[in-house]
Amino acid sequence: MFHLTARDIRRRNRFSVLQAVYAAPGHTSRQDIANATGLSFATVGNMISELLDVGVLVEMGHDESNGGRPRAQLAINPDRGVLVGVDIAETAVHVELYDLGMTVLRSAELPVDPAATQPEDLADLIARGVTDVVGPDTDRVLGVGLSVPGLVEPEGGVSVFSPYWSWRDIPFKTLMEERLSYPLFLDNPLKASTVAELWFGAGRDVDDLIVITLRSGVGVGIAVDGALYRGVSNSAGEWGHTSLILDGRHCRCGRRGCVEAYVGVYGIMETIREADPASRLLTGAQADILPALAKDLADGDPVAQRVVDQTGRYLGVAIATLVNLFNPRTMVLGNVIATHLGEPLLRTARQVAAEQAMSDPFSQVTLRLSALTDNPVSLGAATFALEGFLADRETFGSVGSRRAAKSSTAGM
Amino acid sequence: MFHLTARDIRRRNRFSVLQAVYAAPGHTSRQDIANATGLSFATVGNMISELLDVGVLVEMGHDESNGGRPRAQLAINPDRGVLVGVDIAETAVHVELYDLGMTVLRSAELPVDPAATQPEDLADLIARGVTDVVGPDTDRVLGVGLSVPGLVEPEGGVSVFSPYWSWRDIPFKTLMEERLSYPLFLDNPLKASTVAELWFGAGRDVDDLIVITLRSGVGVGIAVDGALYRGVSNSAGEWGHTSLILDGRHCRCGRRGCVEAYVGVYGIMETIREADPASRLLTGAQADILPALAKDLADGDPVAQRVVDQTGRYLGVAIATLVNLFNPRTMVLGNVIATHLGEPLLRTARQVAAEQAMSDPFSQVTLRLSALTDNPVSLGAATFALEGFLADRETFGSVGSRRAAKSSTAGM
Repeated sequence: MFHLTARDIRRRNRFSVLQAVYAAPGHTSRQDIANATGLSFATVGNMISELLDVGVLVEMGHDESNGGRPRAQLAINPDRGVLVGVDIAETAVHVELYDLGMTVLRSAELPVDPAATQPEDLADLIARGVTDVVGPDTDRVLGVGLSVPGLVEPEGGVSVFSPYWSWRDIPFKTLMEERLSYPLFLDNPLKASTVAELWFGAGRDVDDLIVITLRSGVGVGIAVDGALYRGVSNSAGEWGHTSLILDGRHCRCGRRGCVEAYVGVYGIMETIREADPASRLLTGAQADILPALAKDLADGDPVAQRVVDQTGRYLGVAIATLVNLFNPRTMVLGNVIATHLGEPLLRTARQVAAEQAMSDPFSQVTLRLSALTDNPVSLGAATFALEGFLADRETFGSVGSRRAAKSSTAGM
Repeated sequence: MFHLTARDIRRRNRFSVLQAVYAAPGHTSRQDIANATGLSFATVGNMISELLDVGVLVEMGHDESNGGRPRAQLAINPDRGVLVGVDIAETAVHVELYDLGMTVLRSAELPVDPAATQPEDLADLIARGVTDVVGPDTDRVLGVGLSVPGLVEPEGGVSVFSPYWSWRDIPFKTLMEERLSYPLFLDNPLKASTVAELWFGAGRDVDDLIVITLRSGVGVGIAVDGALYRGVSNSAGEWGHTSLILDGRHCRCGRRGCVEAYVGVYGIMETIREADPASRLLTGAQADILPALAKDLADGDPVAQRVVDQTGRYLGVAIATLVNLFNPRTMVLGNVIATHLGEPLLRTARQVAAEQAMSDPFSQVTLRLSALTDNPVSLGAATFALEGFLADRETFGSVGSRRAAKSSTAGM
């Protein structure tokens, strides 16, 4: 039966308070946070004291502009420590080092050797990338977040299934722990993108949102009341392999007619092939297809027009299903397909979804492109580490705490 | 941002405790309830005292069978009051009167005159039905729950949209309040069926379930952590009008290819027509089709076999979408189609869903028929009233409280 513990509630309130500080860096007071979160002033005060004590927040002078009692301005202390976010994608591993203000300090992109895709190979590659970007900051790492493709079991840290390399039941967390001594946090790219939006994107304004990830693989992350909806085995959101067209295109998952086979990168390639089997878009490297398609579209090429229009139609029908089932406030489209095809794709998808979805839930939802500029998967992976670090008073009071005192005074 | 109030938590704990008592009538102790709910013994003790005080629960002697301290056995006090559940369906209004043990005391079925389907007509009909079944018990009514078809806004009590009669933005709660002086609680049949399962069916064992309603209209109710998932405007679960077959059959909602056009009663009629345009199943009354189809199936009729098999295939694909997106523990199929076609339909649907759904979430889910024997929509509507009555200490301490003292001593 349902029951949140006092610790769960405290953790969620702590996250809410910090999210409000991230949303208004250097310009927020206890009162602003209480207004933004709906939490009581007393609760906010407690949370802030705790976060000031451990050096996660700093006070930056007082705002006396409103008259009355001056309000202490609060900000994240970026120097409190660093976080690593790892996006394990099909062709490359992306590693980013962030300060606590979530500014990228250093990045690395490590190509995946198609001949070396055993779990140990990837673990070696990732460990090398993490060690590279951390550099001299080994003592300041608060945690490393890993976005692992497929179905991931964060507690056991086991990658249940990874579609790119036919992994199954791999104890990937253990493999990484043998190579890195930092606190590790695993989940998949859908969850990573959604957590990134919750903390730093659309989630600043709404608590009920669906984040659509559109790259080779597609899927959704679902946030309800500001928290990830995971399902009973953390595999909720596998929209990419729901049926869009009964007995339709073959999907690389082995089934037919999946959403991914129409709106993922391979699906778009197939739609290009249907529109023009001789298209020069299909002759180059896969990474070049979307930029080239976007350029053709901007140049008014009719094949590009047809391909984006058709993809928008598929996407609109599949989005309508999500609108009807989840009745969300906001849907955010992100990742490479959204980055390159952006508004033209969304325009058609929105029109079709308006026709296909029930009118009441459609009238409640805003469809938009992600406003996150960096790789949302790396950012989300680093946010797993941030959440892990902040999860328990014991943890965030101790990890790197000697440096905390130093940086919170010398900080900004 | 997310925050449950102390009152929300208290209410959910109260519901959990009562659900545990309903699940083991007359055979449960404070200790059993603490075990079943995961709540602390102290919390359970507080909730039980409160419920004993107001006469909702009674103690029924002590069980000394385990040795040690005898444990007071607890039960619902059925005589504490009565609840009314109203299922407003397309062709008839079903009204049931329940005691607090949720035993049906009296029922009425009032046919809807196809020439009198204005909101006021239905409101008159319902008021007559409620007055009839309540009879001399007017002083003992704790609340009336109404299942209104379509999209319902429970707070404002407005039926946003009712598909049968083209209602739109009807202040139905106000119409009913003008006719009945009992506390009224409105929602739609999908939510009603799900609440009924949560309290008295599959929800006794699991907290994450999807309840599939299969009648003329089809749709789902979603329970997460033991509570209804509503979406931002209470329209989550409109599965019936998600696209199953792109540009497929015309649906009565005006769109094409909707799930309902394949697995609802009208969809099954169309599948019969496709299999045998001259089928005698199509010549009788609509209410007779499913029983006749079930009989033909039992008799080994090949057309019936083909129709149920094809319907099971459609259903399996549509179920796979739900499995992938929600990753639930249990899915329950209920209402007239499940009642009549039951296991044969479920068998095919389960096979197809196993192929179509991702293997991990499919391996986590149990698909089964509802075990609720009475109309789950009426039962769920009465449960809205039960939840409303129990929502606040102030309410359930006062409504009918003079009778409470009497019935809790004279009760059982």
